[in-house]
Amino acid sequence: MADTTEFNLNDAVALLARTPATLNALLRGLPDAVVPTNEGGESWSPCDIVGHLIAGERTDWMPRARTILDFGESRPFEPFDRLAQFKESKDQSIDQRLDEFARLRELNLAALQALKLQPEDLQRRGTHPAFGAVTLSQLLATWATHDLTHLHQLSRVMAYQYRDAVGPWSAYLGVLQCTGHGG
Amino acid sequence: MADTTEFNLNDAVALLARTPATLNALLRGLPDAVVPTNEGGESWSPCDIVGHLIAGERTDWMPRARTILDFGESRPFEPFDRLAQFKESKDQSIDQRLDEFARLRELNLAALQALKLQPEDLQRRGTHPAFGAVTLSQLLATWATHDLTHLHQLSRVMAYQYRDAVGPWSAYLGVLQCTGHGG
Repeated sequence: MADTTEFNLNDAVALLARTPATLNALLRGLPDAVVPTNEGGESWSPCDIVGHLIAGERTDWMPRARTILDFGESRPFEPFDRLAQFKESKDQSIDQRLDEFARLRELNLAALQALKLQPEDLQRRGTHPAFGAVTLSQLLATWATHDLTHLHQLSRVMAYQYRDAVGPWSAYLGVLQCTGHGG
Repeated sequence: MADTTEFNLNDAVALLARTPATLNALLRGLPDAVVPTNEGGESWSPCDIVGHLIAGERTDWMPRARTILDFGESRPFEPFDRLAQFKESKDQSIDQRLDEFARLRELNLAALQALKLQPEDLQRRGTHPAFGAVTLSQLLATWATHDLTHLHQLSRVMAYQYRDAVGPWSAYLGVLQCTGHGG
């Protein structure tokens, strides 16, 4: 299968392991005025985005990996609550959220390594509640890509504050043209 | 003017100052297989993107700020070579480029601080070779937003390797739908 031959677990783990430091560098100690800014309406702030990543560590990635390994396709994954960050830990500062995300990511990657997954394990299947059969390698590739989709979103949210200040340069700055593609 | 009242120089400097650490966390020591990957054709790899940021530090942002302060609108900026990274330092590794970018950014921010810009300075005007009159505050806001547009691009370039591996999750991952908006 193309998805398993192309997917390198060690590379994905290397990427997942560096996200807490990337977010720390980008977000820790930001000026207070910037932390709560979003792109208007119900869109997410940097603080909301880190909260969403925390929720993923708690309820999505490793719990779903364990569901695949323990139950195969017989038990669909629990649906993931994309808005959990607006209920849980909503009073935490961004620095507290960065700490919590780093702590959970480290625990989850240790748990992943402890599974000692073999190539044949990566082809094991589970059942996604919306689109049916998926493989463990697809889940793990999605975990890494999900980090990048939210880094993509963060760069866009942080650029939004400068949409007018850049004047005519706006046309040259792709991040200001991005509509978000739903993420 | 809206662009100067909305623009906070200290916040922009705080953002510019953190980019080297963000890129270090995201890129230093990446698996060798990932560093040269791009989105196909003439698109840029992570190594190319850092090279482009280096070229900006050398020839774009602070040189243009000095042109505004020294010559006002009478001397148009030198056109910026968006492809300089394919000529200069093309044999440098990504780690060498990250070091060079961090060194130049630190020097440039020290030079910016040494100018002790006052609010009225931010409204001084220069001449952009393509779109005419621009203000110093627009240039400095663009410098910060340019970092974010390339972080946006980097997240997209790094996600590209997983476009097939994620299987049906592709539809949920905005970064995989991004066409780049020219940046």
